[in-house]
Amino acid sequence: MRGLMQDRPLTIPTLLSRVETNFGHKRVVTGDTVATWSEVAPRVRRLARALDHLGVPPGACVGTFAWNSQRHLELYLGIPASGRILHTVNHRLFADQITFIVNDAADDVLFVDRTILPVVWPLVSSFRSVRHVIVMDDGGDFPLPDDPRILDYEDLLAQRSGEPLELAVPDENAAASLCYTSGTTGNPKGVLYSHRSVVLHSLLLLGADVFALSEKDVVAPIVPMFHVNAWGLPYAAMQCGADLVLPGPHTAPEQLVTLLSRHRVTFSAAVATVWRDLVPLLAGSDLGSLRHIACGGGAVDDALSHAYEKTIGIPLTNAWGMTETSPVVTTSRLGTHHVGLTGDERRLLLGTPGPAVPLTELRVVADDGVPQPRDGTTPGELQVAGATIAGAYYGADSGADSFTSDGWLRTGDVATIDRWGYLRIVDRTKDLVKSGGEWISSVELENAIMADPRVREAAVVGVADPRWGERPVACVVPADGVHLTGDDVRAHLRGRVASWWIPERVELLDEIPKTATGKWSKQTLRQRLGGQRAD
Amino acid sequence: MRGLMQDRPLTIPTLLSRVETNFGHKRVVTGDTVATWSEVAPRVRRLARALDHLGVPPGACVGTFAWNSQRHLELYLGIPASGRILHTVNHRLFADQITFIVNDAADDVLFVDRTILPVVWPLVSSFRSVRHVIVMDDGGDFPLPDDPRILDYEDLLAQRSGEPLELAVPDENAAASLCYTSGTTGNPKGVLYSHRSVVLHSLLLLGADVFALSEKDVVAPIVPMFHVNAWGLPYAAMQCGADLVLPGPHTAPEQLVTLLSRHRVTFSAAVATVWRDLVPLLAGSDLGSLRHIACGGGAVDDALSHAYEKTIGIPLTNAWGMTETSPVVTTSRLGTHHVGLTGDERRLLLGTPGPAVPLTELRVVADDGVPQPRDGTTPGELQVAGATIAGAYYGADSGADSFTSDGWLRTGDVATIDRWGYLRIVDRTKDLVKSGGEWISSVELENAIMADPRVREAAVVGVADPRWGERPVACVVPADGVHLTGDDVRAHLRGRVASWWIPERVELLDEIPKTATGKWSKQTLRQRLGGQRAD
Repeated sequence: MRGLMQDRPLTIPTLLSRVETNFGHKRVVTGDTVATWSEVAPRVRRLARALDHLGVPPGACVGTFAWNSQRHLELYLGIPASGRILHTVNHRLFADQITFIVNDAADDVLFVDRTILPVVWPLVSSFRSVRHVIVMDDGGDFPLPDDPRILDYEDLLAQRSGEPLELAVPDENAAASLCYTSGTTGNPKGVLYSHRSVVLHSLLLLGADVFALSEKDVVAPIVPMFHVNAWGLPYAAMQCGADLVLPGPHTAPEQLVTLLSRHRVTFSAAVATVWRDLVPLLAGSDLGSLRHIACGGGAVDDALSHAYEKTIGIPLTNAWGMTETSPVVTTSRLGTHHVGLTGDERRLLLGTPGPAVPLTELRVVADDGVPQPRDGTTPGELQVAGATIAGAYYGADSGADSFTSDGWLRTGDVATIDRWGYLRIVDRTKDLVKSGGEWISSVELENAIMADPRVREAAVVGVADPRWGERPVACVVPADGVHLTGDDVRAHLRGRVASWWIPERVELLDEIPKTATGKWSKQTLRQRLGGQRAD
Repeated sequence: MRGLMQDRPLTIPTLLSRVETNFGHKRVVTGDTVATWSEVAPRVRRLARALDHLGVPPGACVGTFAWNSQRHLELYLGIPASGRILHTVNHRLFADQITFIVNDAADDVLFVDRTILPVVWPLVSSFRSVRHVIVMDDGGDFPLPDDPRILDYEDLLAQRSGEPLELAVPDENAAASLCYTSGTTGNPKGVLYSHRSVVLHSLLLLGADVFALSEKDVVAPIVPMFHVNAWGLPYAAMQCGADLVLPGPHTAPEQLVTLLSRHRVTFSAAVATVWRDLVPLLAGSDLGSLRHIACGGGAVDDALSHAYEKTIGIPLTNAWGMTETSPVVTTSRLGTHHVGLTGDERRLLLGTPGPAVPLTELRVVADDGVPQPRDGTTPGELQVAGATIAGAYYGADSGADSFTSDGWLRTGDVATIDRWGYLRIVDRTKDLVKSGGEWISSVELENAIMADPRVREAAVVGVADPRWGERPVACVVPADGVHLTGDDVRAHLRGRVASWWIPERVELLDEIPKTATGKWSKQTLRQRLGGQRAD
C-alpha cells in the first residue's frame, strides 16, 4: 500500500518559488553589485521564457562559461527550472577537452561571460551543435564578433519582460544539470544530476552537522560555479535564505579578502590552493565574521589550517566529495567521542574528511571486493552509495568500470573508515607509491613535508626504480624568501615518517603545476620527472 | 531525459542501517535503562523476523499502545522496515474511538505496554482483525490473561535470536506508518505516512533553522510516540546520531525534570500543558544542558515562556504542525530582519509559529478561495502543501473536503503570513467567536488573560447570545493559592484588548478539561457551559 502524502516532486522550480515567497529581501551580491531575490527571480523567469523563444528544446543541454555571478545563478535556475539541462563548462580546460565536452553534451546554445569569450569564440567552429552564443557583459574588452550567432544576455531578458511564466518540472528524476569530470586520463566523463539529487543535496548542506547553513548566513562560494554546482552552495543558500556573495571575475587574493570582509561573509568554501594564497593577507584583514571555512579538493595541510586558526580564530574544515557525488559526501566535525582532544588535535581532526552526511553510505573494499573492517587502519578502495551519488556516466564514455555490480561508485581513492564512520583518504589509487613491495602514501608524505614552515607546497609522485620498483620523489616549493635544500627536507622528515619513506630525490620548484580545477597535476609532474609509472 | 544518479529510495531500512554503521555507540535511554544502538539494532531485526514468524502479512497494520520507550522505538523501526505499517494508537482516547481506530486500520496484531493493558484488554473482543496481543512488560501489574492470543515481546525476540535479516523496502512511496487524528467531531481520520515522507521529515529537523539536531544532542521527546511519530524526533535522532532519552511510563513532572537533568538533555519537545506543569520545579533543578525547548500543540503562553527564560535562561520555542503534516511545518526563529528587537520582543516572537521549513508551502485563503496578501495582518484559512503533507485520509472517512482541488491541505486554522513568511495562527476556524458581526480570536483573548500572573490557564469559547449572536466566555484557572474574581479578569483586560472583546461571563475552574493529546477540549467546555454553537 502506498502512503497517502501529497505528490510533490523535489524540483528546482520549487526552490525558486521558495526564495520568491520567503526570501525576496535577501541579497545576491556580485563584486560590488547587489540585487535582492525580488529582483533576481523575475529575471530567472524571463530567462526561461527567452530559452523558449530561442527554440531551445526541452531536455537540451545549455552550456555556460561563466564566473560566479548573479547571471550564472540565474542560469543555475532558469535552465533546469524550464526543463533544460544546465551544463557548466570549465573554461580552464585544454581547448580539445572543451570541444569534446561541448560536442559530447550536444549543447544547443552557450552562455559566455565576455571575459571568457576569448577562450570560447576561437573554438566555436569546432562546436557541432551550438546555434547561439549569448554573451554576458561582465566588463571584458574582447571585441564582440559581428556574427548572427552572437546574442546579448540583457537584450534577451529585456525582450521577454512582462511575459509571466509558470515554471514546473513534473518529474523529480528529470535531468537538471551536467558537469564533466576533469579526469587525468581518457576523455572527460559527464555526471548528469537530477532535480531530485540537487534538492536532496541542498537539504543535506543545511544540516547542523554538515554546513549548518541558515538564514543568518552570508555564503560566499569561491569554489567555481563551473565546478560541481559550486558544491551545491547556491542551491543550499536558496533553500535557507542565506545571502549569497559571489566574486565574479575578480578572484585575485586581495579581491577575495576584500569581498569576504566587506560583505561580512560567514561561510565560504574553496580548495586549499585558494586558502593558501590568502594567508599573507589575513593579518591585515577583518575576517571576523567567518564562522566556517570549508576546504575541499584534497587533504587539509595542517600548517595552512594553523595559519588560519592563529590569525582569524578558526581552522579550515575539510569536506570530501567528487563531481560524481554532487559533491558533498563527508564534512569534518568533532563528535561526542572526541571530548578531551587538545586544540592541535581538534584542528588536525577537522582537517580530515569526517563522517558521511545523511542518505550516503561509505565502504572500503579490498582488491577481491570484500568490505574491509571499519577499524580506522585497514585501507581499501573507497566506494560510495546514495541518492545524491552518480549511478552511471553520461555521454560517450560510460565509465562502466567505475561502478560495482551492486551499484556503488568506485572512487579511485584508497581510504580507511573508523568505527564512528570517520573517513581518511590514504591516497588516490594511482598516486600510491609501491616501494619494495610496500605502499607509501603520497598524501601522508606530502603533509609531513609541508609541516615544515620553510615549505610552501609539496607534492610527491612515484617514479620507476630498478631496485625498489618505485621510489617517491618530493617536489617542493620553498616558502617566500627561504633557501632550502634536499638535505633540509630529509632532515625534517627524519623521525616523522618511516625511514624508507624518505625520498632520495627532492626537486625544488617555483610552483607545483595545477590542473584546471586547481588541484596538483601529478600527471604533469611525472612527465617532467621523466618517469613512467612502474605499473 | 532522466538524471543518472543512483536509484536509492528514501526508506526506514536505510535509517536503521545508518545508526548501525555509524552510531552503534550512541544511546537509547528509557528511564534508568540505557542501551546502545549496537544493542538495539539487532533487536529491531529480530522483531522484524518475529513479525514474519507470526505471519503478519506485508502491508498489514500493526498497532502499538505504548509509552515512549526503547521497545516502542524498536517497533518504530522493525514494523515499517519489514514492510508492515506502524499504527500508533493513543490509549487515552475513549474506548469507542480506540475500537473504531483498530478496526478501521484492521490491525493484525497489537503491541501493548503492560501498564496500558488494562485499557486495551477489555476492548479486545471488539477488535475484529486482531490475532495477537504482544505484551511488553514495563513493570505494570495487570494480571496477564490466560489466553492464547497473548504473547510476550521478549519471548518473541529471544526465539528469533541468531537469525540474520536483511531489511529492504524497495518503494519509498510505500506506507510506513499510520496515525489517527483525534478530531473533535466525526470519526478519527487516519494519516498514512510514506517511507519517503518520514525520511524527508527527519532531514528537515536537522536543518540549522529548524531544530538543528546533531550528533552532539541528547534528544528527549516528551511528546508521546503515539502522537504523530513523536514529531518525527526518534527518526531525526537516528539520522544524526543524537542520543535519545525516553521517559517510559514515568511522566509525572518530578520524573520528567529528573530525566532531563540526569541525562543532560539538550533538546526536548512537548505541548504547553507539560511545560506548564514543570514550572514549579524549575528553580530547584539543573536544566542547564537544555539548548532548545520546543513547544507545540498551540500558541505559546508568554507568561509560561517568560518563566523558563527567567529560571533556566532560554524561552520556549513554538512549532506548528498537525497529524496531517508529519507534523513539523514551521518552527520559530529570529531572522536577520529581526535585529533590534528587545529581549521581550524576541521571546514573544519565538512564541509564534515562525516560517515554513523547506519543502513546505503555506498560504492563507479567503472564503472565496483567493490567496490573501502576505502582509502579516490579512487573515484567511491556512492551507499547506509539500512532500511531507497528507494528500488524503486513510480508511472509512476520506475527509475529501479537507483538501482543495489543487491538492493543498485545508488546516481549519485561521492565520496570517507576513512578507518574510512568518505564520501567526489567529484561531481555529471553529473556535473564532463571531460577536456583533465581528470576529474575536479566542487565542488572542486567552493570551491576554494569561498574561496576568494570577492566572494559571485560560480558555475562551463562544456561546450563543440573543443580542450579539455569540459572546466569548472565559474559563479561567487561577494560579495556586490565588483568589480571583471575574471583575479581576475584566480589569486586567481593560486596555489590553478591544473593549467589546471583554467577556461578561468569566467561569473560574479548577482545571481546563483536556483532550487525549493534552490540548484544551473546547468541545467539553462548550457542553459544560450549556451553549450550542451559534452557527
